[in-house]
Amino acid sequence: MFRLGIDMGGTAIKTGVMDEEMQVISRHSVPTQSSFEQVVSDMAQAAREAAGKIGLRLEDFPCVGVGTPSCINPYTGKLVFSNNTNWRNVPLREELEKHIPVPVYIGNDADCAVIGETVAGGAKGKRDVLMITLGTGVGCGIILGGKLFSGADGMGAELGHTPLIYGGAECTCGSRGCLEAYASLLGLIRITREAMDRHPESAMHRYLALEEGEITGKTSFECAKAGDAAANEVVDEYLEYVANGIGGAINVFRPEVVLVGGGISNAGEFLFSRLEKKLGKYVFAGDIIGCPPVRRAILGNDAGLVGAACLDLMQEVCK
Amino acid sequence: MFRLGIDMGGTAIKTGVMDEEMQVISRHSVPTQSSFEQVVSDMAQAAREAAGKIGLRLEDFPCVGVGTPSCINPYTGKLVFSNNTNWRNVPLREELEKHIPVPVYIGNDADCAVIGETVAGGAKGKRDVLMITLGTGVGCGIILGGKLFSGADGMGAELGHTPLIYGGAECTCGSRGCLEAYASLLGLIRITREAMDRHPESAMHRYLALEEGEITGKTSFECAKAGDAAANEVVDEYLEYVANGIGGAINVFRPEVVLVGGGISNAGEFLFSRLEKKLGKYVFAGDIIGCPPVRRAILGNDAGLVGAACLDLMQEVCK
Repeated sequence: MFRLGIDMGGTAIKTGVMDEEMQVISRHSVPTQSSFEQVVSDMAQAAREAAGKIGLRLEDFPCVGVGTPSCINPYTGKLVFSNNTNWRNVPLREELEKHIPVPVYIGNDADCAVIGETVAGGAKGKRDVLMITLGTGVGCGIILGGKLFSGADGMGAELGHTPLIYGGAECTCGSRGCLEAYASLLGLIRITREAMDRHPESAMHRYLALEEGEITGKTSFECAKAGDAAANEVVDEYLEYVANGIGGAINVFRPEVVLVGGGISNAGEFLFSRLEKKLGKYVFAGDIIGCPPVRRAILGNDAGLVGAACLDLMQEVCK
Repeated sequence: MFRLGIDMGGTAIKTGVMDEEMQVISRHSVPTQSSFEQVVSDMAQAAREAAGKIGLRLEDFPCVGVGTPSCINPYTGKLVFSNNTNWRNVPLREELEKHIPVPVYIGNDADCAVIGETVAGGAKGKRDVLMITLGTGVGCGIILGGKLFSGADGMGAELGHTPLIYGGAECTCGSRGCLEAYASLLGLIRITREAMDRHPESAMHRYLALEEGEITGKTSFECAKAGDAAANEVVDEYLEYVANGIGGAINVFRPEVVLVGGGISNAGEFLFSRLEKKLGKYVFAGDIIGCPPVRRAILGNDAGLVGAACLDLMQEVCK
C-alpha cells in the first residue's frame, strides 16, 4: 500500500508518495500562496501531481495526511491558528476533502515529524518517543504507547513554551524565558552575538567574514570545532540549556528514546556527545532509574512528509 | 463494593475502607517504622484493622491499593527508591501479597492523589486532569483519557523536577532551579525569609513572634491578607513561579482542569483568584484556544487514601 503526504511549509507545499518501506518514490512542490482557498486547492493539486508521476490517482490511496506549522485541532479538523499565515479557525480538513476524494488527516508539523521518525526513522519500533526539533523554533512531538500525544485537546505538546528561565529572554509567543527562547536557532544566534560582542578576538568574527556576514546556527559550532574558546563557551552554554529542557521532559515522560532533529542537530556527533554528558545532572534519579538514550533524528526534512502520510496510524481524531 | 486503601507516609501508615460513594467509613493508623519487613507487615495489619472495625476481612475486597511518597515501578511492583526510608528496589507488591490475600496495587502518593480527586473529588467525571500538590515538595499527578499517566516506565510525571530558573536555587533532587525549588513549601519559606531580611518593618516579624517563631507557609499569606506590603510581594513572587510552572504544564498537557492541592492551597480563594489572573500570560495562545480552569483540590489529606483504594481503576500494570 502506497501512502501520500503533504508538508505545507511557509515557503513551499511539498507532496510525496511513499512505498511500503516508507521511501519517498515521487515528489512534487509548489510555492505557498497566502490565500487559504488557494493553498487548499494547491495542496490537492500538488498531491495529484506527485501521485500522477507514478501513474496513480488520489483515489488509489487509503487517505492523505497534511502536516503544517500551525495549531491544529484534530477533533474538529480545524487549523486553529497559524502565525505564518495569520489564519484563525479555518476548516482545513473539510475544505481539503472537497478536493481530495479520500479521508484527510491534518497535524502539526512537529507531531508529523515524530510520527515519521517512529514509523520509519530513528525511533522505529519504539512505543514511547519524545522528539525535539531545534530549528527556528523548538518543536516537540510525543508518542505514548504507540499513539501520538498532543495534549488532551490536541493543541498541546508545546514543550518549547515551558519555562527554562523565569522572566528571561522574550519568546516569540509573547511570554518570557521559554525553552524556545534559548534552545531555538534564534536563541543560539542571540547567545552567539552576545559572545562575539564580548570577544572581539574570537575566530567567530573571521568566520562571519568568510561566510555571508550573518550569524547562523553554524557560526558557534564550526568555530568551536576549530578550537575557538569563545565559540566553545557559546556551544557549552547553548547545550546546557538544551540538556536542562530535555532532562525536564524526560522527568515527565520517561520515554524509551529522545530524538533530536532540526537544523542545529546537523552539528552531529560534536553536539550529541556533549549533550549526553550534560544530560545526567538534569534527569531525576537517573543514577537509579536510568536515562533514555538521546539520538539524532535520521529522516531530516522528510520526517514531516513521511509522518503526514502516516497520521492515520497514530493520531486519534475522535474523543 | 467497598474499597480499601493504604497511605504510607513518613510518620504514619493510614488505612481506610471506603463505601460506594467513596466516603471513608473506617480508618486505622499506626506509626511508620524503619525496617521494610516491619512496614510491610504493619501495612497489612493496619488494613486488616480498618476492615475489622466494620466486620470485614481482607478477602472481602476486590484488591488493596497502597500509595507512598516513593518512586514506584508499577510494572515490576517494586518500590524503586524512597528518600524517606532510603530503600532501593524493594519488592513491595510481592511482599505485601504474602500478607494480603487479594491483588495489591502500588502507586506514588501524587499519582494516588490525582486518582482520588478524579474518582471522587474536584475533578470528578473528568478524563484529562493535571494535579499539582504544593507541599513540602511539589507533587504532580496526571490523568490522560481516564487513565493514570506516570511516564512510559511509570516513574515520571515529576513536574516538580522540570526547570523554572536554569541554574537557580538548589533543589532536593541535587539539580538546580527546578520548579520544586520555588513552588514548594521549602521554596516559599526561603522567599519569605529573604523578604523578612530585606524588610525589618514587615508585619511578618510580628506574626512570627505570635506563632511559634518558625517561618511557615502561612507567614507570608496571612500577613499579605492583613495588608503587609512585604508579605504581599512574597505571595506575588511565589504565585508568579507557580503560575509559570502550571502554565508550562498546560502548554504540554492541555488538561480539562488543573487541580491544586497540598498545604499551601489552604490559603484558599486569596491564592486561587491571584493565581488565575497570573496564569493567562503563561498559556500559549490561551486567548485563542482557551485556558483550563484551575481549582482547589477538595479531598485534602484523604486524596491519597481514596486514590490508593482506586489504583486498579486507573493504573496500567502491564506494558
